Amino acid sequence: MNAFTFYSPTFFDFGENAERQTGELVRRFGGSHVLLVYGGGSVKRNGAYDAVTDSLRAAGIPWDELSGVQPNPRSGLVYQGIDLCRRVGADFLLAIGGGSAIDTAKAIAFGAPYNGDFWDIFTGKAKLEACMPVGVVLTIAAAGSEGSNSCVITQENGAFKWGSPKSDLIRPRFAVMNPRYTCTLPPFQTACGAADMMSHIMERYFSNTPDVGLTDRLCEALLKTVIAAAPRALANPDDIAARADLMWTSTLAHNNSVGIGREQDWASHQMEHELSALYDCAHGAGLAVVTPAWMEYVMSHDVSRFARFAVNVFGAEMDYAVPERTAREGIRRLRVFFHELGLPATLAEIGGREEDIPVMVERRKQKPNGFPFGGFVKIGPDDMAAILRLCVK
Amino acid sequence: MNAFTFYSPTFFDFGENAERQTGELVRRFGGSHVLLVYGGGSVKRNGAYDAVTDSLRAAGIPWDELSGVQPNPRSGLVYQGIDLCRRVGADFLLAIGGGSAIDTAKAIAFGAPYNGDFWDIFTGKAKLEACMPVGVVLTIAAAGSEGSNSCVITQENGAFKWGSPKSDLIRPRFAVMNPRYTCTLPPFQTACGAADMMSHIMERYFSNTPDVGLTDRLCEALLKTVIAAAPRALANPDDIAARADLMWTSTLAHNNSVGIGREQDWASHQMEHELSALYDCAHGAGLAVVTPAWMEYVMSHDVSRFARFAVNVFGAEMDYAVPERTAREGIRRLRVFFHELGLPATLAEIGGREEDIPVMVERRKQKPNGFPFGGFVKIGPDDMAAILRLCVK
Repeated sequence: MNAFTFYSPTFFDFGENAERQTGELVRRFGGSHVLLVYGGGSVKRNGAYDAVTDSLRAAGIPWDELSGVQPNPRSGLVYQGIDLCRRVGADFLLAIGGGSAIDTAKAIAFGAPYNGDFWDIFTGKAKLEACMPVGVVLTIAAAGSEGSNSCVITQENGAFKWGSPKSDLIRPRFAVMNPRYTCTLPPFQTACGAADMMSHIMERYFSNTPDVGLTDRLCEALLKTVIAAAPRALANPDDIAARADLMWTSTLAHNNSVGIGREQDWASHQMEHELSALYDCAHGAGLAVVTPAWMEYVMSHDVSRFARFAVNVFGAEMDYAVPERTAREGIRRLRVFFHELGLPATLAEIGGREEDIPVMVERRKQKPNGFPFGGFVKIGPDDMAAILRLCVK
Repeated sequence: MNAFTFYSPTFFDFGENAERQTGELVRRFGGSHVLLVYGGGSVKRNGAYDAVTDSLRAAGIPWDELSGVQPNPRSGLVYQGIDLCRRVGADFLLAIGGGSAIDTAKAIAFGAPYNGDFWDIFTGKAKLEACMPVGVVLTIAAAGSEGSNSCVITQENGAFKWGSPKSDLIRPRFAVMNPRYTCTLPPFQTACGAADMMSHIMERYFSNTPDVGLTDRLCEALLKTVIAAAPRALANPDDIAARADLMWTSTLAHNNSVGIGREQDWASHQMEHELSALYDCAHGAGLAVVTPAWMEYVMSHDVSRFARFAVNVFGAEMDYAVPERTAREGIRRLRVFFHELGLPATLAEIGGREEDIPVMVERRKQKPNGFPFGGFVKIGPDDMAAILRLCVK
């Protein structure tokens, strides 16, 4: 285990009717004028919007609204939100929705106090030094942004998808989590959420750091939970126990509680950012395509870790004579699992084409610290192209 | 899974030389004059005291000292600390040591702002409404008090051991955790620490709440970590990887990250408080005696849960035809494990006598909400006596 710091100061209020606490929580964490950030119809249809605004009204907290957040949220709406925030004098960002709404709120929260173009903070031209408080009413179990220290925004013009710097300032002050609101998600979105949280765990699991038995076991516990719960939630959308397991797992998968003290990978995420920037596919769908391909490509780097993954996560039988067989079996089972969730397995299924592979590699090159990436195995331009070619078949 | 709130705002700085950050952390969390709270020789011998005071000096933070904390920490020292705190104008409590030093610091922290006898807060006569900030430099992996929301103090006269009310106000602002300092612990203390953290997990594991697969798996991950690491630390006291695993497990075992959303038990802890109040035995030693006896007594309440414990924690083979056999095997393996760590198994080994059992039951009766206790199985006076008699043999 490496040295680490761990700080997860978010207050989580989880369960049936938790959203009724929203107004009180805004007040407790210092808000007196809220900017509500959300997407569109779903939070109105499922009742979350009404419950939250009722709660704000009851607590006597005025609010303004920024709606229209899309998946792979765009910089344009962030600029609008920063303007609005300054104009109305909001002092608290409140996101209703999933990762896209939360990440938009986070970018506004550190963009508004910055005297310049908020994009400077993504590119590293400016430091993230101040951030308005953010609260979350979660309605999608996936991104884990409700407890994380970063956000991801796609540039309006140019299709560049960037992760913000990591900072404890960005962590939400509170997250209200009622799994009931996730019951009305379309099946594909439930599946994408499962892939996203599994990826957040696997990006941490595949590590070169020795002596990480504790966090290995915690990662395996979370992965097994997703494997048990996601098919249940798809078979019966109102299975509230499965929804609750998925929702809390999404948070633990990304607040770094299972990643502390270990080198992490994140290569699949980096490659997926290029996929969803170019094709605007769902993040989880892109991860379902790229992650097994990445696994095949890097497996020989540490066969025993992939064998452990197969046995401890997917219940494969260990082949002590030929551990590589077990390692391959784990990757195969992951593919089968994603397939059973209805997730894509190839570039073509997310609208991608083999000819675009050089474009994606080129775009990655243009980012600061573009290559190499990946903590488990260093991925250079040729490796990235080879992995993406494995997604063609 | 039940509804829950989870809030663990402590900043953890973990690893080699982490204690050098102490002064900066006190400043970051608002301290300008520290009251240091510690036991005696060990933190001076192992270098922790010097490293911490060097760090305070470098940060320009003055301090006063309260030393002499004993295991099963006493109310007398808390009164002294409250006086001292007020007299010197300290605004930050800093504990160096394990649970006893931390719990003393916590009791001072909510006792000093209270205009009356701090014991009123333990008995419920007064509410815990204000608390000074507490920081921790941890040198013993056991109690988990570095991340918890409560503390336990023994009355100077009368040998009553009480747990404080639970409040987020009590959670330490930061905890500095260098596993190196735990390498010089006597083997018995290392073993007691392992029993203490296992108990904190098992008190949460044995639950009647349905649909708790996620936290069940997290509990099992932590228990398996202790089972792997504790014998390594005893065989080679300088095994820093094992020490690190034990140290971080002690925190996770008790900051409620594995207990959220589930009814918890705590019967073994309640009974152990009577043991250590009467015999001044180490808390972990008392738990090693009472926990397996409690398990035997309540096993029939939920054989399948005990069978799961045997299989998932201790690697027993499931007897599908007679699950009770597997359940018993888990309890047997826990006893063997405690024995191999050098922990006591009977009342006699901690200086206890069968004749005292009615005394302990009587003392428990005198506490508010004394009987029944236990969330998994309700324990009345006769049950408590029967469980303690199981510890005689």
